[in-house]
Formats: sequence, C-alpha cells, structure tokens
Amino acid sequence: MMEVTDILRRYSALADEKIGEVIRDITPETLLKASEHLITAGGKKIRPSLALLSCEAVGGNLDDAAGVAAAIELIHTFSLIHDDIMDDDEMRRGEPSVHVIWGEPMAILAGDVLFSKAFEAVIKNGDPSMVREALAVVVDSCVKICEGQALDMGFEEKFDVTEEEYMEMIYKKTAALIAAATKAGAIMGSGTPEEVSALEDYGKFIGLAFQIHDDYLDVVSDEESLGKPVGSDIAEGKMTLMVVKALERASAEDRERLISILQAKDQKLVSEAIEIFERYDSINYAHEVALDHVRMAKERLMVLEDSDARAALMRIADFVLEREH
Amino acid sequence: MMEVTDILRRYSALADEKIGEVIRDITPETLLKASEHLITAGGKKIRPSLALLSCEAVGGNLDDAAGVAAAIELIHTFSLIHDDIMDDDEMRRGEPSVHVIWGEPMAILAGDVLFSKAFEAVIKNGDPSMVREALAVVVDSCVKICEGQALDMGFEEKFDVTEEEYMEMIYKKTAALIAAATKAGAIMGSGTPEEVSALEDYGKFIGLAFQIHDDYLDVVSDEESLGKPVGSDIAEGKMTLMVVKALERASAEDRERLISILQAKDQKLVSEAIEIFERYDSINYAHEVALDHVRMAKERLMVLEDSDARAALMRIADFVLEREH
Repeated sequence: MMEVTDILRRYSALADEKIGEVIRDITPETLLKASEHLITAGGKKIRPSLALLSCEAVGGNLDDAAGVAAAIELIHTFSLIHDDIMDDDEMRRGEPSVHVIWGEPMAILAGDVLFSKAFEAVIKNGDPSMVREALAVVVDSCVKICEGQALDMGFEEKFDVTEEEYMEMIYKKTAALIAAATKAGAIMGSGTPEEVSALEDYGKFIGLAFQIHDDYLDVVSDEESLGKPVGSDIAEGKMTLMVVKALERASAEDRERLISILQAKDQKLVSEAIEIFERYDSINYAHEVALDHVRMAKERLMVLEDSDARAALMRIADFVLEREH
Repeated sequence: MMEVTDILRRYSALADEKIGEVIRDITPETLLKASEHLITAGGKKIRPSLALLSCEAVGGNLDDAAGVAAAIELIHTFSLIHDDIMDDDEMRRGEPSVHVIWGEPMAILAGDVLFSKAFEAVIKNGDPSMVREALAVVVDSCVKICEGQALDMGFEEKFDVTEEEYMEMIYKKTAALIAAATKAGAIMGSGTPEEVSALEDYGKFIGLAFQIHDDYLDVVSDEESLGKPVGSDIAEGKMTLMVVKALERASAEDRERLISILQAKDQKLVSEAIEIFERYDSINYAHEVALDHVRMAKERLMVLEDSDARAALMRIADFVLEREH
C-alpha cells in the first residue's frame, strides 16, 4: 500500500518549485521574507498534491496543473496568515505567526501579496483555453473562504445553529478550497464534465470530513498528539458538529448547561461538556458523518478510469480520518 | 469645455452598476454590509472612469471594459480598507472606517472578499481572448500595490531615500493601479499595442502626478479645503518628494533639523519644516515634477485618434492638478 507521506512528498515538490518561481521576485526583502515564512515552515501540501493528482487522474500531464497547484497552496497560506491575525493565534506550523514576527500591517500585506501571486500562478501557466475556467473555480473558492470565515464569526454566541448551517460554514471555510484544488486540477488536465464534477465532489467530501475529524480529534485525542490541551475548542466556545448535535438532542437542562460552559471559556469545564456530548452520542455522530463523507468521496472516484493517481486519491481519502493531530 | 465631474458621473454610473451586480450576492449580511460600506460612501470613481474612457478612446464599446472598470474600483476599495487598518485611520470618505464599525477581523475579510470579487468581475465580463491579458495586467498591479505599501513602510525612519526610490514607491503604491485601469481598459477595447502602451504610460504619469500633488496640497492648501491641519504629513513623519528633495539639497544643519522634526511627529513643528522646504525650493520642485508628468501624460495621448474620449482623458489629466483637496 502506498504511504500517503510518500505520495505527498513527490507531488508537493513540483508545487514547491512553482511556488518558488512565482514568489521569488517579491520586493522589498521584508515583504518577501514575511510572505515566504509559512511556506518554508512546512505543512503537508495536501491541497496542491490533490490538484496535481486530479489532473493526472483524468489523463492530464502534471505540468498542466502546476500553476493551479501553486495557486491553491498560496491561497491556503494567505488565508492562514489573515486568520492568525483575526484570531490572534501566535503559533503556526511550530513557528511564531507572521504577525508576531513582522507586525500586523506587514502580515496583512504578506497575505495580500500571496493572494495576488496565486492568480498570477494560474494565469501564467497552462493552456489558455483552460485557464479561464480554472481561474473562475479558484476565484469562487476565495469568495467562499471569506464568507465561511464570516459565518464562523457569526456563530459565536449563536446557539441555534442547525446542522445544515454548520455544514455550509465548514464547506465554505475549509472544503471549498479543497474542492477547487481537485476541480481546477481536473479542468487543467482536460477532464470531461463528468470527471470534473466527480473530482469536485471528491474534494468537497474529503474537505468536510477533514474539518469534522479535526473537531472530533480535539475531543478524543490526547494532549501530546494535539500539541494543545484536549477540548480547547470547547474552552474557546467554538461551534462544532458535536456541539450542534448535542444542543439539538439535549434536555432543556443539559442544553442550558452546555451553553453556559461554552460561554464561560474555561478549560476546567471541558470534561463536563464532553460528558454532555457523550450523553447524547454526539461524538460518535460526528465521527459517523465524517466516515460517510469519506465513503461518498471514494464512491465519486469510481467515475474515473483506474490509474495510480486514482489509487492515490482513494488512499488520501482514508488518510483524512487516520490523522491523529 | 467639459466638466470633469460630469464626465465622471456618466462613466462611474456604469461602473457602479457592474460593481453592484458583482458584490450583491456576498453572504452573510454582515460581510456584505462591511464590504459595501466604502463603495456606497462615495468617492469620485476616477479609476473605473479611466478604464472605460481608455476602452472608448481606442474604439471599443463601453460594455467591453465594464468588468475591468468594476475590478479596478473593487481593488482600490480593498486596498483602502486594509490601509486604514494598517495606519489605524478612523475616518474615510467622511464616514468611520470599516474596521472602526465592524472591527478588524471583519474589515480584513471585507477587503479580502472585495479582492476576490474584483477578479470575478474581470473573468465573467468581456471577450475571453482579451480577458486573460487584461487579468494579467490587473493582477500585476495588485502585487505592486502591496510592494509599494511595504516600501512606504520601509521609508519610515529612513532619511536617505533617493528621488528614484521615492518615485518607484509611489508608482507601485498609487500609479500602478491607475496605469492598470487605462491599460486593461485599452486591452478590452482591442487597442493596438501602441495604443495600449500609450494609455498605460498616460495612467502611470497621471498617477504619479496625482500622488505628488496630494503631498503638495498638504503643505500649500488650507485646513478647510484639506479637512485636516496643514502639514499633517510632516507631523506624521511621512516621506514625500518635498522631504526627499529638501534632505538632498539642505545644509548639514538644516538636514539634521528636518530629520529631527520628522522624528518628533509634532504638529507644532510643521511651519519650521515648511520653511526648510522653501529654503531649498523643494515645494516648487515637487509642483514642477507633477506638471511635467501631466504634460507627458497628455503627450502620450497624441498617439490616439481624436475623439470625445481622448478629449475627456486630456481634461482629466489637467484636473489631477486642479484638485484642492
């Protein structure tokens, strides 16, 4: 069986090369350094790898999707830099955040310039007839990322969020960019409309599973794997599928108690919240929803002809729920 | 003679319509409101009007450049929103800034979503064969805006800035977007390479004149016209062509004194700085440079055939230095 880390290493190297080519002429030096910081700090580069694999899976050449792959990673990085400012998160990928090192103004600019460079990467690479369509997909995902972030902010202190509203939020905030990677990759590889649509759904489903699993791990994993205390989402009052489900199913009394815990933002109350989650089976529920989405993602790949790239995409779908941090 | 305000009113109406079409589906409501705020607060819409006029001046139809015109104004608005956060400017266009009303996180997002929508406006409007080229122009100007802003930040506490470095900074920060408006407008109007190049230069030259005149007004105008105290750039320690020239020409003693005034950031020392500017004729120098650029801008228009649009562009070039605030 292919190791996902080996797959990602091979594909991310190509994306890295293209990213380097696109951003290296940013001036002045300070802006370049601030922009490069998170990119050189690592990250699994799963998004650009998905773009490249999607291109290959429809019979395209890797090079056709290199610009799109670079763009997706640049947009991901831009959104991390701006998110860290908004949430005042001081660490990212084991390093101080961009705004911690260079200050907020330079961090805002670093995000903005990477965003611009993402579009440059798409425009300057690949077949012109495909570029416009791929670009529309990428731009649309950028609008969705902003909308998803705004929705998430609106969920603070809102305790009647429905499962549907929650799924829309994580679709926009997390899954839309992954779906853009797989869809635009397939477009650049000259996929048929059916293939493009299947790969878009695949990206969307694994993106949703990814986010739900992330929230699930926060509750079921341990401090060492997480690199932060168990239940820190609860202590931050964050909306997750487990919260949505527990609030929906709970007795009036438990509902009230859970709301007051989420409002208190106190790490000491985490275990009590988890007890309420368990009482209404909302942790298992979230895990089941994530598993369902991985299953649906893999099912959509059956539209494609068998290939090493398709096998790699299958493997990555399972990998999404194998992560422990 | 045509009144510039009449010209701008006619053309900006078309740009406004396209902008409304592009942004109206932003959700949730809060993000839409924060994004619309500066757009509905007014502004002369000179940049989109220049894009439309450039399209007409090369024989194109106005509609061909509507997407580009909307995009340029959206990018301008995005950069104002982010600039106001970076500089913590609390008022803009007579209204509280976006981050003052909605907070920094929502203001960062509002900028980001308008930026995304700008690209959507270009992609979804106009002849596909021209769109890619116009988009490359627009993207390039976005990179330059970020670079220019970073250069400007780097000039703080740097007192050996050369005139060339200063001109590069204002080209990137201010003129590049105006040049993108005229160049991309000409591209969408199917201008010849000579016409496109002439209109790019025209935009660049009036953009440079615009910024130099802005800095000049800060010193020669009055508080009522400016809406802020005379010399507030000096009191903020801002780099301008007048500062660059005075520092270059001044005696060691005056140079030292001017530097200490710029570091002091004290409105009470403004008149002394202006005396030093006058001693080395740097105010007149800046005005002459602005006049030169307007002259060069108009000269480049001679490449085009005579038309109402060309006459309007001529008129706008003069208007740049007629502004009193």
